[in-house]
Amino acid sequence: MIIVGEKINTSLKGVTEAVLGRDVEFISDLAKYQAELGAQYIDVNCGTLVDDEVTSLPWLVETVQSAVDLPCCIDSPNPLALAAAIGVHKGKPLINSITNENGRYMEIIPLVKESGGKIIALVIDDEYGMPAIAEHRIKVGNDLVKRLNADGVSNDRIFIDPLVQPISSSPEMGRIVLDTISGIARANPGVHFMCGLSNISYGLPQRSLLNSTYLCLCMMAGLDAAILNPGNKRMMANIYATEALLNMDEFCSEYLGAFRNGLLDVK
Amino acid sequence: MIIVGEKINTSLKGVTEAVLGRDVEFISDLAKYQAELGAQYIDVNCGTLVDDEVTSLPWLVETVQSAVDLPCCIDSPNPLALAAAIGVHKGKPLINSITNENGRYMEIIPLVKESGGKIIALVIDDEYGMPAIAEHRIKVGNDLVKRLNADGVSNDRIFIDPLVQPISSSPEMGRIVLDTISGIARANPGVHFMCGLSNISYGLPQRSLLNSTYLCLCMMAGLDAAILNPGNKRMMANIYATEALLNMDEFCSEYLGAFRNGLLDVK
Repeated sequence: MIIVGEKINTSLKGVTEAVLGRDVEFISDLAKYQAELGAQYIDVNCGTLVDDEVTSLPWLVETVQSAVDLPCCIDSPNPLALAAAIGVHKGKPLINSITNENGRYMEIIPLVKESGGKIIALVIDDEYGMPAIAEHRIKVGNDLVKRLNADGVSNDRIFIDPLVQPISSSPEMGRIVLDTISGIARANPGVHFMCGLSNISYGLPQRSLLNSTYLCLCMMAGLDAAILNPGNKRMMANIYATEALLNMDEFCSEYLGAFRNGLLDVK
Repeated sequence: MIIVGEKINTSLKGVTEAVLGRDVEFISDLAKYQAELGAQYIDVNCGTLVDDEVTSLPWLVETVQSAVDLPCCIDSPNPLALAAAIGVHKGKPLINSITNENGRYMEIIPLVKESGGKIIALVIDDEYGMPAIAEHRIKVGNDLVKRLNADGVSNDRIFIDPLVQPISSSPEMGRIVLDTISGIARANPGVHFMCGLSNISYGLPQRSLLNSTYLCLCMMAGLDAAILNPGNKRMMANIYATEALLNMDEFCSEYLGAFRNGLLDVK
């Protein structure tokens, strides 16, 4: 499982102040904390600072990469902010995100090509918008993979995001995303799947129970990456358990290592 | 999810003494405890009392059914004990179990026919024994369903047990059982699936983490019944969460009810 640490995001407590005040220590600590707990990418997102994003996002990338030897997941709706941040990134970033809307696609694809990075691809296009049913999400995903391939981006550089939405308003949404993952996975070997899980539980109580359970179901469908807080013990314990149960952890060695390090100590 | 309460089993602490001493209160309390927590069947198993089983098993059925208005899951390798217990059972029991081994099949099928009960069918036959791969388990399961149908037992009376075995000795076993469930489910609409989950984690630490995670994966594959302790809060919370996530719980009403009753209060 590829863990993208989610904690450097100006929508989370304290981060806005740290970014505006250029607090290197605060951001470095968040990066180190997540790296130590197993994050393979550090997400950087300052989308709430609209006016400031073009200067703050590259500062975040530089600050994170001074603290930890990891690539960033560079997360912005703003192509200029993405370009500025990619420009200072060492190694190959994970770019968040592209869609199959023609305007967005054409803005983002040059950044993917120039950086040689990986790309999170949302199943959105101009025809369906955010499709309501699995069949259409699968079609949009398959089209996106084809188009990215034609632009020289191989499957192992593509992370499809199947767009998790709340079951409280759309009860069928849990199944739709699972079917979307398995459908696109069948048609496109080697493609990765990534999502933010917490949308699934919006509006319901005991959200962490739903989020961590849904993670296991998504992994069974083919999810192999997630944006989450690697300090969430239940989430991480469920990942170790699911990988052992699905024979993705040879001799259960990761599971046993996590146990020895006290990471499975959940009730 | 159909919960079969597992706690009246002479392999568990205190139960042997209660059965040998004909302690009505002890057994009744265990039955009521499980019924209150949502068990739809009460499993009765005194298989460790080999010599005494033919008299003790019917005593257990009568004692349980005097305490709670629920059917029993009558659990024995001994056809004589099964017959004696079925003879005193009120309503239709769940009989545990038949296989497609010819000897076992011919011993048990008359009990199923006469009682009109439901039957747990293990994927074992004379050719493969306990099959090593999913393909063979699916074949044995499909054959068993056909044979039971031919004997007048409809799909809704059949609970296939896909035979959970430890991933510590056979790492591929988690996937094999999941594939067995989904394979047999596809070919036999209306058939139920039931298993004891705890075998999966034998030999590994933090067994309850593995067991409760595996339950969610099995439910996604099609499991709709399990023998477990309905007092296991994590297990039950995962069931409520998974049913909500898989759109098997209209308007999340069971989930919300469980939350109001404090049943989702897990970390």
